[in-house]
Amino acid sequence: MITAEEALAIVLRHVQPLAPQVQPLLEALDCVLAQDVVAQEDLPPFPCSAKDGFAVIARDASNPRRLIGEQTAGYVAGLRVEPGTCVRITTGAPLPPGADAVIMVEDTQEANGMVTLLRPVAPGADVRPVGQDVAKGERVLAAGTCLGPQEIGLLASLGHSSVLVYPRPRVGVLSTGNEVVEPETPPRPGQIRDSNRYALMAALRRAGAQPVSLGIAPDEEAALTAVIDEALATCDAVITSGGVSMGKLDLIKPLLARRGQVHFGLVNMKPGKPLTFATVEGKPVFALPGFPVSSLVSFELFVRPALRKMSGHRLLLRPRVPVTLAEAIRGDAGRPEFHRAVVWRENGGYKARSTGLQSSGRLLSMVGANALLVLPQQDRPFQAGETVMAILLDHPETDPDPVAATEP
Amino acid sequence: MITAEEALAIVLRHVQPLAPQVQPLLEALDCVLAQDVVAQEDLPPFPCSAKDGFAVIARDASNPRRLIGEQTAGYVAGLRVEPGTCVRITTGAPLPPGADAVIMVEDTQEANGMVTLLRPVAPGADVRPVGQDVAKGERVLAAGTCLGPQEIGLLASLGHSSVLVYPRPRVGVLSTGNEVVEPETPPRPGQIRDSNRYALMAALRRAGAQPVSLGIAPDEEAALTAVIDEALATCDAVITSGGVSMGKLDLIKPLLARRGQVHFGLVNMKPGKPLTFATVEGKPVFALPGFPVSSLVSFELFVRPALRKMSGHRLLLRPRVPVTLAEAIRGDAGRPEFHRAVVWRENGGYKARSTGLQSSGRLLSMVGANALLVLPQQDRPFQAGETVMAILLDHPETDPDPVAATEP
Repeated sequence: MITAEEALAIVLRHVQPLAPQVQPLLEALDCVLAQDVVAQEDLPPFPCSAKDGFAVIARDASNPRRLIGEQTAGYVAGLRVEPGTCVRITTGAPLPPGADAVIMVEDTQEANGMVTLLRPVAPGADVRPVGQDVAKGERVLAAGTCLGPQEIGLLASLGHSSVLVYPRPRVGVLSTGNEVVEPETPPRPGQIRDSNRYALMAALRRAGAQPVSLGIAPDEEAALTAVIDEALATCDAVITSGGVSMGKLDLIKPLLARRGQVHFGLVNMKPGKPLTFATVEGKPVFALPGFPVSSLVSFELFVRPALRKMSGHRLLLRPRVPVTLAEAIRGDAGRPEFHRAVVWRENGGYKARSTGLQSSGRLLSMVGANALLVLPQQDRPFQAGETVMAILLDHPETDPDPVAATEP
Repeated sequence: MITAEEALAIVLRHVQPLAPQVQPLLEALDCVLAQDVVAQEDLPPFPCSAKDGFAVIARDASNPRRLIGEQTAGYVAGLRVEPGTCVRITTGAPLPPGADAVIMVEDTQEANGMVTLLRPVAPGADVRPVGQDVAKGERVLAAGTCLGPQEIGLLASLGHSSVLVYPRPRVGVLSTGNEVVEPETPPRPGQIRDSNRYALMAALRRAGAQPVSLGIAPDEEAALTAVIDEALATCDAVITSGGVSMGKLDLIKPLLARRGQVHFGLVNMKPGKPLTFATVEGKPVFALPGFPVSSLVSFELFVRPALRKMSGHRLLLRPRVPVTLAEAIRGDAGRPEFHRAVVWRENGGYKARSTGLQSSGRLLSMVGANALLVLPQQDRPFQAGETVMAILLDHPETDPDPVAATEP
């Protein structure tokens, strides 16, 4: 049985960034840029005023000066400032030829077509020179940049209404099991409602992927094969839950072994020991355990980093920080445990408490959890005041692909 | 001129959570629950097996035991376990009447219709009792909870295919100015491309709001009035950018004063001093400055907290942490500055460096920035090694509404 670290490394070795696609600018939000962006022009493209005021010649000694016209933003008025004159100008308007400075309206007095400067003005004052914000030829964004609001704005300002990015992976999500019914269906005796598909689709959205519901499949080989084959034809990855333990009706793993390559089927961890990772025609398939907590924790530890790598991200892993236990916490004697916890900042460090009973079926153990404590297997409880490592689930990824970092 | 803190308090006093709406479950991701959710049933609803194995009577002394049938998941096989017998069972299947424990298949040997138990089994072993995960009548989620994947899964498991939440605010976004053209339009002399609308719509998506593009309006009172009136009829809030300084063509503020109430028009900060906040028929209108950095920083400081309050969130503000400057940084002698910076963890604390030239037009000063340094106004530069406060822009909100916290 492999460790969680080994499992993650195997997953990351078998997934690669998707082929870049051109996306409309706003759709590219939170996507990773697939090419360098070099400015094809200067910004601002013309010298312009940073203030509302008057365009003047700074070293002109005359005062007051004759107001010869007005230059507002958006066009070129065709005025020229000569010694002894000035032009009324608004913020963002092009500086008229001849002028080399702007004096704020608050620093002037205007009367009878003449403007008195109440203080001296330096050459260049309140003028935004060509290329001040962006210089033509400058590489403004590097391939690999994750596009946030500021990068989206910068691209718009340079004329990009679409952009080459790594696309959001389309991920099919299938729940399996004869006992599983839709949430709106009243369960008959022996049946339970599906929760995994909804939780996983929500987790996919948060990971920036496009979830595709594949519904619920019964424990029948033909039905499972059909739905997984169809999903592989249209999706970049497939996630199933249920049907990966040791029972007679656990059909997923042999099915994946026939269709592709199973890289592992068990991981030494709690929750989530039975966890199959396969690739079929180069596409990753994650067969997650059926217990709701197990499937979500497995998603966070293995699927999310894989999807981030497929999305072109360089930072794949949530930060791991030392936390001090605020209470005694019982781990697991047999397996390393990812223990759901609430972590908070205190005195410059982090403290943690458990979310309570860690049963794999108990989604309540994840409600309010913002961290997973990484508890080595041990018999005795971890004591209040002990320090353990925690994975911060609500913090952005800060750690790079460990495989890429170590491979030659 | 008011301070940024006063401006934020005024904004938060004038916005309230939107009326809750029923949303389909997956659409409610990242929304705030508007009612307590009480479990109407037990989970699991029937005692079921946690493992693949055999359902047995724990204190039955007979060994081997006769295999009388099979109970898989999803139905009730109608078998009854008597002393001397057992039933093959799969994970998640209902425990047959009579049985009180499950022994894992790995701990048994099966031959000729008889099952030998290789180790003793305790009553209740590997049986998930009724209500283990959720007890009927238990309040599983409190009003005010932000719904993540685990909460979505929990709601699905309890039969909720839709849920009452605070809706995502619909926010109209308008760029103003005769000089502004669409990104795909080649600018003529004196024109520049719109970036603010794209950056703000992206920032709205990240804030969980629904952006509605209102296009670009010229500096004409009738056109501006028409588009803002139409937006107020269909949106929960409106954001404009440009047209809020002191110039003759700055029409937004007087327009808002006629239509509603202007609460402030200037904030003592850099970037972004001219910033108008108004309410019109109870709906907030933010008239942001035209400079790209000013509008985005103003959005982060004032609009995003307001939208979070409208969305029912209790935590409105990004965390502020002390950071140590890794280099000397020049602030502003005249106004408190929100200085764009890169902050990283080091030795248990945070360090920060500037993103460079802080011109309000220079979106590059926000590229890669994950924090705003809160620099008090002062003449001399801040020194390397000095400690200042930083607002962490990529961390989830951790601080509650300061107005609600202080009001009686």
